Amino acid sequence: MIHDADDAITRDGKLLILAYDHGLEHGPVDFEPNPETADPERVFELATHDAVTALAVQKGVAEAYYPYYESDVSLLLKINGTSNLWMGEPDSAVNCSVEYAADLGADAIGFTLYGGSNHEIEMAEEFRDAQEDAREHDMGVVMWSYPRGQGLKNDTSPDTIAYAARQGLELGADVAKVKYPGSAAAMAEAVRMAGPTKVVMSGGSKTDDRSFLETVESAIDAGAKGLAVGRNVFQRENPVQLLDALEGVIFEELPAAEALEQAGGDPETAAE
Amino acid sequence: MIHDADDAITRDGKLLILAYDHGLEHGPVDFEPNPETADPERVFELATHDAVTALAVQKGVAEAYYPYYESDVSLLLKINGTSNLWMGEPDSAVNCSVEYAADLGADAIGFTLYGGSNHEIEMAEEFRDAQEDAREHDMGVVMWSYPRGQGLKNDTSPDTIAYAARQGLELGADVAKVKYPGSAAAMAEAVRMAGPTKVVMSGGSKTDDRSFLETVESAIDAGAKGLAVGRNVFQRENPVQLLDALEGVIFEELPAAEALEQAGGDPETAAE
Amino acid sequence: MIHDADDAITRDGKLLILAYDHGLEHGPVDFEPNPETADPERVFELATHDAVTALAVQKGVAEAYYPYYESDVSLLLKINGTSNLWMGEPDSAVNCSVEYAADLGADAIGFTLYGGSNHEIEMAEEFRDAQEDAREHDMGVVMWSYPRGQGLKNDTSPDTIAYAARQGLELGADVAKVKYPGSAAAMAEAVRMAGPTKVVMSGGSKTDDRSFLETVESAIDAGAKGLAVGRNVFQRENPVQLLDALEGVIFEELPAAEALEQAGGDPETAAE
Amino acid sequence: MIHDADDAITRDGKLLILAYDHGLEHGPVDFEPNPETADPERVFELATHDAVTALAVQKGVAEAYYPYYESDVSLLLKINGTSNLWMGEPDSAVNCSVEYAADLGADAIGFTLYGGSNHEIEMAEEFRDAQEDAREHDMGVVMWSYPRGQGLKNDTSPDTIAYAARQGLELGADVAKVKYPGSAAAMAEAVRMAGPTKVVMSGGSKTDDRSFLETVESAIDAGAKGLAVGRNVFQRENPVQLLDALEGVIFEELPAAEALEQAGGDPETAAE
Amino acid sequence: MIHDADDAITRDGKLLILAYDHGLEHGPVDFEPNPETADPERVFELATHDAVTALAVQKGVAEAYYPYYESDVSLLLKINGTSNLWMGEPDSAVNCSVEYAADLGADAIGFTLYGGSNHEIEMAEEFRDAQEDAREHDMGVVMWSYPRGQGLKNDTSPDTIAYAARQGLELGADVAKVKYPGSAAAMAEAVRMAGPTKVVMSGGSKTDDRSFLETVESAIDAGAKGLAVGRNVFQRENPVQLLDALEGVIFEELPAAEALEQAGGDPETAAE
Repeated sequence: MIHDADDAITRDGKLLILAYDHGLEHGPVDFEPNPETADPERVFELATHDAVTALAVQKGVAEAYYPYYESDVSLLLKINGTSNLWMGEPDSAVNCSVEYAADLGADAIGFTLYGGSNHEIEMAEEFRDAQEDAREHDMGVVMWSYPRGQGLKNDTSPDTIAYAARQGLELGADVAKVKYPGSAAAMAEAVRMAGPTKVVMSGGSKTDDRSFLETVESAIDAGAKGLAVGRNVFQRENPVQLLDALEGVIFEELPAAEALEQAGGDPETAAE
Repeated sequence: MIHDADDAITRDGKLLILAYDHGLEHGPVDFEPNPETADPERVFELATHDAVTALAVQKGVAEAYYPYYESDVSLLLKINGTSNLWMGEPDSAVNCSVEYAADLGADAIGFTLYGGSNHEIEMAEEFRDAQEDAREHDMGVVMWSYPRGQGLKNDTSPDTIAYAARQGLELGADVAKVKYPGSAAAMAEAVRMAGPTKVVMSGGSKTDDRSFLETVESAIDAGAKGLAVGRNVFQRENPVQLLDALEGVIFEELPAAEALEQAGGDPETAAE
Repeated sequence: MIHDADDAITRDGKLLILAYDHGLEHGPVDFEPNPETADPERVFELATHDAVTALAVQKGVAEAYYPYYESDVSLLLKINGTSNLWMGEPDSAVNCSVEYAADLGADAIGFTLYGGSNHEIEMAEEFRDAQEDAREHDMGVVMWSYPRGQGLKNDTSPDTIAYAARQGLELGADVAKVKYPGSAAAMAEAVRMAGPTKVVMSGGSKTDDRSFLETVESAIDAGAKGLAVGRNVFQRENPVQLLDALEGVIFEELPAAEALEQAGGDPETAAE
Repeated sequence: MIHDADDAITRDGKLLILAYDHGLEHGPVDFEPNPETADPERVFELATHDAVTALAVQKGVAEAYYPYYESDVSLLLKINGTSNLWMGEPDSAVNCSVEYAADLGADAIGFTLYGGSNHEIEMAEEFRDAQEDAREHDMGVVMWSYPRGQGLKNDTSPDTIAYAARQGLELGADVAKVKYPGSAAAMAEAVRMAGPTKVVMSGGSKTDDRSFLETVESAIDAGAKGLAVGRNVFQRENPVQLLDALEGVIFEELPAAEALEQAGGDPETAAE
Repeated sequence: MIHDADDAITRDGKLLILAYDHGLEHGPVDFEPNPETADPERVFELATHDAVTALAVQKGVAEAYYPYYESDVSLLLKINGTSNLWMGEPDSAVNCSVEYAADLGADAIGFTLYGGSNHEIEMAEEFRDAQEDAREHDMGVVMWSYPRGQGLKNDTSPDTIAYAARQGLELGADVAKVKYPGSAAAMAEAVRMAGPTKVVMSGGSKTDDRSFLETVESAIDAGAKGLAVGRNVFQRENPVQLLDALEGVIFEELPAAEALEQAGGDPETAAE
């Protein structure tokens, strides 16, 4: 973790990462609820929203679309990832070199580490190279710190998430993206373990607006520096409204209900 | 995927790839129906046909014959491949470096990825290197995106082919070669998933002229940008006639029957 | 082992290494007895104590904190390590390159070797590279020589620890950190086996002040050149007092009781 | 396959390779029938025979003897090979780099590929590097194309040998050394599959003069470009006589009986 | 094998290698019969004896002591080796790069090859690199050729030792160190198989003076060029006397009894 290394993907020290690597990691099934979400252009447009501090995509999507959005979107190139056709122990192919990410104009790299997998050691060594190469190119480093595999019984328990956050600090990530550990107290503990490494909450599968925003609010209250969100934004009918509300919760630290109302949503019921 | 990176192997943005790697992938058995097809020269001659936008061969065949066809044929060097003597989980040896492909005059590289194989991660990392090296040499990148192996139950289901096409986009291929997923609707979905990455249909084993052309027509109607064909051309008595007809279907977007008639074939019955 | 290669992390030829890689190796659980110990800054402050000749941390912690302590603390960068989420045969990921350690200002590198593990050979070859790279950067080399894994029945038996110490000499470590083998005689034998490679005792889990200091005294009497200590310092209420006492035992070669009394502790009973 | 790349090891486009890697591949047992054959010098002397177009040896033998034979013998350095102490799936260590082979004065490299072995892919990738490095040093490339291992039931069946020959062409060998597939017709088919890649027959274990020469004659008639022979020459009482006869069969295309008679042998009965 | 490449570690074309890698390979147990033998300095002193043509040690021991003996001792750096804590199939970690060995002032490198191990191929490829790197630095190459592992039933049978010696020649060693195969005739056969590669006998575990010297005499008579000896020298009360006697047997080709008497030993009975 190097102070200010993540400047290009933060706003007032906080992050709202729009993640769009589902086409690789989950496949077309993630686009079924809203077929037009298969089109990366739609997501690049969303990423121009003021609330979004970085867009996380794989190499091929960046190659095709980022040339048209370089001035409006900060690129967080997710350099590893694997299809869910893969049936082996959790692992992730390094699909893009850091140098190539830099050539594509990336402001930061994203890297998944599956702590506890029997590929953990190999992945940690790949992370070493990626992290050090990123330093050479003055790019920030975001770790998707996701304990998973043979060593794990429960991959969202408070202890596991606290450990995941600490791995981010120990191994040199500027930002650690972790699952929500089920409570604000557990999130606070993860944040404490990460020290100066910023913790961002992973959005997870889609829920209704209000409960999603409340979870984000509780994470921010617990010291998280933001959110990495995919399906909870791009699968919605009105993703811009939700981004407006997230802007309120994350950057203005408004209560979820107030932020949602201000964004034009209905704070009493789920928006969809 | 980089716009125009595949210019040298397309015509009006479409492709007709003549594939001739069967001697390695399947062995001499593929030449038995028509023994003279074992002779690469015969296929290089076919590749000079106006309809053919690229010829896909392995390194050794390119070394021996391409010097005589450089001005008439666009070379798509298939840089990985494996004999079918191999009994292991699907995998493919990288038989040619990208630099050597460039030295041989290749316009693009071809690379097989077996998504779902327990070698998927290793192959994806080899693809990364190949793709990035190809960018350095201004060569296009064609992915043979063929899910296969321990993770797959059905390697031509619509879902699988749609995922295969999306992998082409996500990982940075300019063109994704996929199996025909059984219907025009399924092909359209695969095309949609690939976004700006061009999808070409894989020819498969030999069928009669009319039904083969109709499948190609349906793929083109579904948005596919062309065809990669081997046995369905080179095993025929009159491969030139079929190439004439394919030119009609792919580049002039004629109905299969009309294209076949125009090429001098009998649209009512199978040509052989 | 090169004479004087470890000058920057010794004082009068002896060492007191404050080790703080528990966040990676053991996880947050090691901070539970004293929650504020999760904060690296607290340990960096302790490391400014005159008795501490080097602070051992992982890359990420060094990146974040060492810039503020460069003039007051000698950095022993622990370049490999693994989370205890890992369930495989003992192994350790190389998390930091030697060159990057040098860029961070490290005075020496630390490296774990699990002799007897079925990863021993791979780890020994990684150690080779690390050791030779360290020589190029004039950094000392400390081996955490910890036999463990399929080849070991008892990893703290006198024979095992003697062998561990010898591995340090044979493979080129300047300092070998070994577990206490249970008696002063066994420690003396380990010291003898290491020849000119300095042996330091590993602190282990927390015990009371008096008995801890007596073990250190016996190790020093047996020829050990010092101590690497983590939990036995940072988990205490009054770690400075213990560091004062350790200074007496290690550098002034005082009896444990006298050193403890001089440090203001109660030599009759355990301090906590 | 590059035209003329094998000029230095051919005569009128044909080859008689004297192979002497038995000391590594089979061990001392191959020298028992004629103990003095253990002495490489004896074989280097034989290699000065006009009929011999190249001598195939391993690195160590070339290092020790080739300096004295550089002007009289063409060196085909066999860069991979394995002892028969090896009990694993067929594989072959790369014992010599191509650059070192070039330094030793080699005119060509020899490389074994075990198609169908579960090491086939790794070997094919090693072959890629070797072949491309050989091109940089203007050396010819001879593939010992020997399907063997888990994928093979019968490693000398006509189909297998035809496939082996084709692998030579597809992967870029100038010459493919294959086992005799049992008949002239099968050899002709293998030759046809290899296209411009020259096929040479592998000599195999020792038989009598007449039948050996007849097999060679039938292979030449079938289009093979020569022979790689070891035991059938060096284990004989009068190896020069057999080389004289082989010269007749291979380069003058004489019938076996006539060539044997001309060489002073007894065409009616076996010579030994 | 290159003529004169081993000049720096031979005397009149013969070798007496004092081997002292037991601290790594066997551990402290080898020093128990004579505890002071754990001290490398004692062995370096012995290595200044005129009879000793090279001292074989691991990297760490060379680093610490060789600077003081450079002018009096020829250094044979043993670049691979493994502790006997290792329980896997025979293998040996490459603990020192050839370049670093050269920096340490080594005159030659030593390398263990376990023919028949399921790591044979990997080790042979590591040997290739080491051997070629040694050539670049004008260092001799000594192979510890020790068939062992899954492929071996009897690792000191005459056939095995003859094969081991031949591997030394084929793979490019200047000197092959082999176990004594049980008889002078078997040793002569091993020597014959190695051709110009010098064969030295491995000393093995300690026996009495007379019988040890007689075995050495018989090996020399059989054509061996010397001896590599460790425990049979350094475990003795009077190692200098034995070195005197070995000088007689190896370099003056005296009978064992005469050499022992001349050295002041008792030729009738065992010295200890």
